Amino acid sequence: MTDHYELTMLAAALRDGTAERDCVFEVFARRLPEGRRYGVVAGTGRLLEAIESFRFGEAELAQLERTGVVDERTLAWLADYRFTGDVDGYPEGELYFPGSPILSVRAPFAVGVVLETLALSILNHDSAIASAAARMVSAANGRRMIEMGSRRTHEEAAVASARAAYLAGFTATSNLEAGRRHGIPTAGTCAHAFTLLHDSEEDAFRDQVEALGVGTTLLVDTYDITEGINTAIRVAGPELGAIRIDSGDLGVLARQARDQLDSLGAKNTRIVVSGDLDEYSIAALRAEPVDAYGVGTSLVTGSGAPTAGMVYKLVEVDGRPVAKRSSSKESRGGRKNALRRHKDTGTALEEVVFPHGEQPELGEHDRLLPVPLMRAGDRAEGLDSLAQSRERLRAALVSVPWEGLKLSRGEPAIPTTFR
Amino acid sequence: MTDHYELTMLAAALRDGTAERDCVFEVFARRLPEGRRYGVVAGTGRLLEAIESFRFGEAELAQLERTGVVDERTLAWLADYRFTGDVDGYPEGELYFPGSPILSVRAPFAVGVVLETLALSILNHDSAIASAAARMVSAANGRRMIEMGSRRTHEEAAVASARAAYLAGFTATSNLEAGRRHGIPTAGTCAHAFTLLHDSEEDAFRDQVEALGVGTTLLVDTYDITEGINTAIRVAGPELGAIRIDSGDLGVLARQARDQLDSLGAKNTRIVVSGDLDEYSIAALRAEPVDAYGVGTSLVTGSGAPTAGMVYKLVEVDGRPVAKRSSSKESRGGRKNALRRHKDTGTALEEVVFPHGEQPELGEHDRLLPVPLMRAGDRAEGLDSLAQSRERLRAALVSVPWEGLKLSRGEPAIPTTFR
Repeated sequence: MTDHYELTMLAAALRDGTAERDCVFEVFARRLPEGRRYGVVAGTGRLLEAIESFRFGEAELAQLERTGVVDERTLAWLADYRFTGDVDGYPEGELYFPGSPILSVRAPFAVGVVLETLALSILNHDSAIASAAARMVSAANGRRMIEMGSRRTHEEAAVASARAAYLAGFTATSNLEAGRRHGIPTAGTCAHAFTLLHDSEEDAFRDQVEALGVGTTLLVDTYDITEGINTAIRVAGPELGAIRIDSGDLGVLARQARDQLDSLGAKNTRIVVSGDLDEYSIAALRAEPVDAYGVGTSLVTGSGAPTAGMVYKLVEVDGRPVAKRSSSKESRGGRKNALRRHKDTGTALEEVVFPHGEQPELGEHDRLLPVPLMRAGDRAEGLDSLAQSRERLRAALVSVPWEGLKLSRGEPAIPTTFR
Repeated sequence: MTDHYELTMLAAALRDGTAERDCVFEVFARRLPEGRRYGVVAGTGRLLEAIESFRFGEAELAQLERTGVVDERTLAWLADYRFTGDVDGYPEGELYFPGSPILSVRAPFAVGVVLETLALSILNHDSAIASAAARMVSAANGRRMIEMGSRRTHEEAAVASARAAYLAGFTATSNLEAGRRHGIPTAGTCAHAFTLLHDSEEDAFRDQVEALGVGTTLLVDTYDITEGINTAIRVAGPELGAIRIDSGDLGVLARQARDQLDSLGAKNTRIVVSGDLDEYSIAALRAEPVDAYGVGTSLVTGSGAPTAGMVYKLVEVDGRPVAKRSSSKESRGGRKNALRRHKDTGTALEEVVFPHGEQPELGEHDRLLPVPLMRAGDRAEGLDSLAQSRERLRAALVSVPWEGLKLSRGEPAIPTTFR
């Protein structure tokens, strides 16, 4: 999980003696995806684990030797690699804005340079998914959200997407491995295939209820929805847990289904809708009798923004600020710190980014954003659990100005001030 | 890598006796991404390996037991799981169109149903990347293409993306693990960080040339490009391999750089450009003196279409065609076969999808598309290597009508006829 150029830089730096220079690398996003009001930091937990176990094993070293990517000295250095630096950063679940110093890695050049791809892959992917998911959760306004997008993304990205969605407030995921690996609740009952497998929809429903109980969710849109709902209640009785509708005009169908279920006495049977939902269609269904949303494609593809576009830049060498100076990709040198200012009401006002050494004046409702994440290569003590990060994001979103929670395109919810 | 509902369906089917019914599941795309003219089948090689090694291990079974997702009988069945069915499908590197039967899985319901998420995750991801990559390769018109998008996607998706890009004709990847795992050439030299690490650009260039040789690529846009090129040639001499420009107006800069290199006697020093390139900007640079493109974000995000949108549908049960009938997601029941008709010149005319049992009339230039991929759970003999799939795609693209290779939005390059 390393780019070729990281190791050629390493080889050159080991050769010329610059490998040991004390460096700070910073992760930040130059801008939010087009029209987005805020970003959600996600993947930090996965990244810290990945850094702790980042090694070059025998198979990797043999490949590097065979292909001549690096010289003997570098191979020997890589064989002993273990991250030994410090990492500070925004805790997972925190909001970020353009220029927020999301992560800083302090280490000798050689130790820090090889983490660029790993750090960016994890943070860019997970933050893109969590940022989209948070908008969907806002749009759903407290209703249950089930992540079911695994089939629309890479098989491992699927597990990470489920984790990011849960962080952002989704209730459950369809992905069993995400349940096992990250302790996320999983959900699911049956697909159309189960109905088609049977000689009739009634047979399928009866067998499903016998196997999974009347609390199950019956998928009623394989043939005719009205008929399907009648059959569902006839088979399961009015105590049926839920029905799911996966196609068609979901608003109209939800209303009709609610009326029909009520008229059949199934007043507590919930309605789950799925099928190409995104934050906009979720919001459009707010007035309809929908109890839960299943969201797939738009979630795992970041709803139009599949990557967060963060970069990993060298900002300090032996205490001296450094920065690229040519053209549009200019950046600010020097290690940074950041705080968020809030009104007395708790509403966020601005993100202030300032030089790392400075002692800022903190108002009563202001807070410093970065926290220690790793010290001398070990994870810092007292790091948040996924559940705590989830709660952190929920609280942070409450502080966003009302304008910034709108789904429509616009400027970042709060400005970033560089000092 | 399985969705919850696959196992609850399995549990219900084992209970009611339908688990052993002889089923055919088919993978197809209802449509191509908006405006695309063709799709590229990719991921088949990865999928067959994943199916062969698909097992439920102790940790997975323990989790399923603890969470009560399935009953005892199903746990015992899963513990012995091994895929035993047949798989046929379009070979990797083949083109596909709306409705093409890209993959068919024939197996007892229980054996086939648990593969839905795995099959779709791999095919949807890899095909989306390869389909975007093929357009970029067409636009580059024979110039070298280096995939460098790992940092913009999930760390494992990055490896699969590099593979899909190579399949589609990219020359090399920055991702070392893709080199190790899939035998793809890797490339890379230095980032801006290497220049910033040193006391001067000249120091950095000298050390890089000493470590990597004069054939290396020097990144000249950290400070001032004109100055950077002068320094590069002063340090490396006119035999310098290449320079890279990563920002700014790449067309203008490439022309200026070419003139400057030529005037310095570095007539064979190549120009590599990178920085937010996609198929359109690559095409726009066709008239400029660019020797190689480095492509990142747009490649790994499928250039606007990050998933191929394929589905995995039950189409046949005990020889009887089955299909969902309600609303917009209707599909065609029955197992299918497909052929592609061509003119005498070799140009493709139409994709014909027909019932599996039928014997079609094949013209001299027509060919059947699906091939055997697995038999009784083992991979079929004589499957293509990645290099062969790459050559297959190259040949298939030559057969696409001229209109269908245009980058502009439009209809599929050839129509699909369902018989």
